[in-house]
Amino acid sequence: MLNSPVILARAARCCALTAVALSLLTQPRIACAAPRSAEPAPPTDEQIAAQLRDAALAGEDLAWDWVSELTTRFGPRPAGSDNERQAAEWAAARLKALGFANVHIETFPITAWVRGAESAQIVAPLTQPLVVAALGESPPTPAAGLEGEVVIFPTFADLKEAPPASLTGKIAFVAARMVRTQDGAGYGAAVAARSDGPAEAAKRGAIAFVLRSVGTDSNRIAHTGTTVYVDGRVPVPAFALAAPDADQIERLAALGDKVHIRLYSSASYIQGAHSQNVVADVPGRLHPEEYVLLGAHLDSWDQGTGAIDDGTGTAIIAAAANLILDLPHRVPRRTVRVVLFGSEEVAQPVAPFGAFGGHSYADGHKAELARHVLAGESDFGTDRVYSLALPAAVAKSDFATTVFRVLQPIGVLAARSAARNVGTDVDPAVEAGVPAFALLQDGSRYFDIHHTADDTLDKVDREQLDQNVAAWAALVWLAADSEVDFRPKAPAHE
Amino acid sequence: MLNSPVILARAARCCALTAVALSLLTQPRIACAAPRSAEPAPPTDEQIAAQLRDAALAGEDLAWDWVSELTTRFGPRPAGSDNERQAAEWAAARLKALGFANVHIETFPITAWVRGAESAQIVAPLTQPLVVAALGESPPTPAAGLEGEVVIFPTFADLKEAPPASLTGKIAFVAARMVRTQDGAGYGAAVAARSDGPAEAAKRGAIAFVLRSVGTDSNRIAHTGTTVYVDGRVPVPAFALAAPDADQIERLAALGDKVHIRLYSSASYIQGAHSQNVVADVPGRLHPEEYVLLGAHLDSWDQGTGAIDDGTGTAIIAAAANLILDLPHRVPRRTVRVVLFGSEEVAQPVAPFGAFGGHSYADGHKAELARHVLAGESDFGTDRVYSLALPAAVAKSDFATTVFRVLQPIGVLAARSAARNVGTDVDPAVEAGVPAFALLQDGSRYFDIHHTADDTLDKVDREQLDQNVAAWAALVWLAADSEVDFRPKAPAHE
Repeated sequence: MLNSPVILARAARCCALTAVALSLLTQPRIACAAPRSAEPAPPTDEQIAAQLRDAALAGEDLAWDWVSELTTRFGPRPAGSDNERQAAEWAAARLKALGFANVHIETFPITAWVRGAESAQIVAPLTQPLVVAALGESPPTPAAGLEGEVVIFPTFADLKEAPPASLTGKIAFVAARMVRTQDGAGYGAAVAARSDGPAEAAKRGAIAFVLRSVGTDSNRIAHTGTTVYVDGRVPVPAFALAAPDADQIERLAALGDKVHIRLYSSASYIQGAHSQNVVADVPGRLHPEEYVLLGAHLDSWDQGTGAIDDGTGTAIIAAAANLILDLPHRVPRRTVRVVLFGSEEVAQPVAPFGAFGGHSYADGHKAELARHVLAGESDFGTDRVYSLALPAAVAKSDFATTVFRVLQPIGVLAARSAARNVGTDVDPAVEAGVPAFALLQDGSRYFDIHHTADDTLDKVDREQLDQNVAAWAALVWLAADSEVDFRPKAPAHE
Repeated sequence: MLNSPVILARAARCCALTAVALSLLTQPRIACAAPRSAEPAPPTDEQIAAQLRDAALAGEDLAWDWVSELTTRFGPRPAGSDNERQAAEWAAARLKALGFANVHIETFPITAWVRGAESAQIVAPLTQPLVVAALGESPPTPAAGLEGEVVIFPTFADLKEAPPASLTGKIAFVAARMVRTQDGAGYGAAVAARSDGPAEAAKRGAIAFVLRSVGTDSNRIAHTGTTVYVDGRVPVPAFALAAPDADQIERLAALGDKVHIRLYSSASYIQGAHSQNVVADVPGRLHPEEYVLLGAHLDSWDQGTGAIDDGTGTAIIAAAANLILDLPHRVPRRTVRVVLFGSEEVAQPVAPFGAFGGHSYADGHKAELARHVLAGESDFGTDRVYSLALPAAVAKSDFATTVFRVLQPIGVLAARSAARNVGTDVDPAVEAGVPAFALLQDGSRYFDIHHTADDTLDKVDREQLDQNVAAWAALVWLAADSEVDFRPKAPAHE
């Protein structure tokens, strides 16, 4: 997709001349009333936003290279691991080299969870191998494994209706299928079984909990994900079955046989581990103390290489901010802040063990949060943005009108409702009052590989990746170079 | 897809009244010159063939139930395993219950290969997990595993050009990509690296051999397959990498790092194991000593459940023969013989260790082979048949004209060349002079899951499965109820 002006632009990068600049210089001018001899009017904010958008769409951004190098060099980046730490150091060095300001790493303590060896088999009526993944935070089984009869619950609600002690010595299996939807609603409907299933099974005497992977594919690859602590621990070993393995157990039971399975995991915990957030700024020219916050997470699950979850999220926000940083002779009024969060995946969803990277940032930057004018997070894969939810305060403003004039040509419509919670990483800031936006992505394919070994670079659609960067760069530019107040207005002003 | 006449037919099965019979009775008659009061003319062979075809297309066959129960009850069925033996006993009992004659099991000795635990990691520059599968017949690694620098060969030809001793202490990696084609030609082009790669690597001093999986998918699932003995053994441990893992090593090397990997396998061999073929006949009414041979294999690789390789093959031929068996008041002139072969997958491709099931049958039935009038094999998945290759002797015969009148409506065209080798199982008989046909299937998707853990029932397209049964039932009926000689004619007669 490179053409010669772009190559020139790249070569001239040290002079802050970019593709955007060159395309502004070389494109046919829009006819206007000013005499030809006068200085050309500087481009408007909207024109700059459109140029940022078009440069990203043309692939003139660093997103692909970023995610390719991140996932190749460091592979999986589980929270607290050496790979996660080295990836953070690499990202900080890369952002510094690109010219970002205030680049630094903020470290925080965690208890790391480490997947061990794991295996599972049907042991009766006849031995068959099963593909499983221990759920995040799940304790190990005894060294000899666990064996028991499987009790099948079509839904999580059915498990919750089982009487006390009805599962003593048995293995509870929730067989519910996740529904494929564009907006990810199917995940929301299915994930409670994963989060709370181990506790509900344990309450009824079960020795272990398994569920059909919360996913939409039918590969022999299981989807992991975090489970919820009860009194500081997950009460029984818990595993996700690959979809075909869940099918197999259901069909075998339907043939009239009692199904017994064996589960083994040597998962462990590391007390006193550390994770880290990487912070980098494009300082504002008029209000450097005001931040537009862009978040994504650098850690990943341990079996894939975290390409779509969330390597591309970090690539999208870094690339979008970098396009703004590289604008010739234009610096936004406000600071654009990129935060690459650590320890998003394994973290407990609820306090006091909640999402560490996000909480660490919100705690450590408490005094600044009132000056965070807007925040967004990219953590829903790499497929195209189709909708934008803005804070309610600006939903019908001139700002919104401008934004959608720039974004509608690349397929982004106004969302039906305002942005509320927008992601695990920035939500602690949002809950502290920071207004949020959400660039909603097509999640139809996302849960085919979400939280699996299959989350690798080859799954990234480069064209859609660039469309994401285009939407982020244009929107963030317009917000950062504005004086718009995104916070809710007092009722009297409405 | 059931409607009431079909349900009636099923209920009346003990009276040999089937859907075919009922639909013959209830369909509008074709106008003819005979007076209306006369007995209706019995249906022609071509009409019967069309009825068999249409019954199968309507799902009135046992194929789905067969493959569902086979893969569910017995899971993987590796050669020599208890699962393979029990599956053979189940199949024989099922065929007997359906009314097949001469149902029996023919046992033969093999050395079984058993996959053990296996794992692989990139160990330098940074630790990353790899997804691998030991290749069939591969010896184990030492208990501590093997570690070495990876030497990348873009193609197998490049490995074969490497000088002697150039790989001493290293791990050879052939990175060639299989090409997706409809007819499976991409497999033929790629598979030599898997068969002969370990030997070529060992010759040059390598301690192990890995290759990019011979497959067309990009999942984190490796494709196994057999490797060739040299002096009675595979000379070094050999593994397939999942496609994304092969990509990862190539990209990491391109970043300038030397890549070291660790390989571990505890594979083993069982001397004095046994496999078995299941034989079942629909006896002919005029020439019961003449056989139309239908082959498929009952064993499978050990990680999937052998759904498309080759559970559906056994289902297709059993269902096609069963439709013929169930014809009311019609028995074919010649015997239709179904053979469900054992030990196809792990067997060595060349003598004296060659494909055991096929060789065992050809040896054990040597005296009958001259009376095997035609043979075919179903072992290319479940997707639709698009072409039929007949023996050269009948390519332009009236028989062929009739066959294609029946098969063209379901999308089966004449192949451009005559059938030659048609499959591992029946080829020993074909090489002994038995004429062969090939119902060529669309293999575009086949190598996405071929020889992987992902070969499970959910991958079977039931509609295309029935189209296969339709083509087999119609063709086999026409061949078995004919007096056609499929053997090559003496040149003077041409």
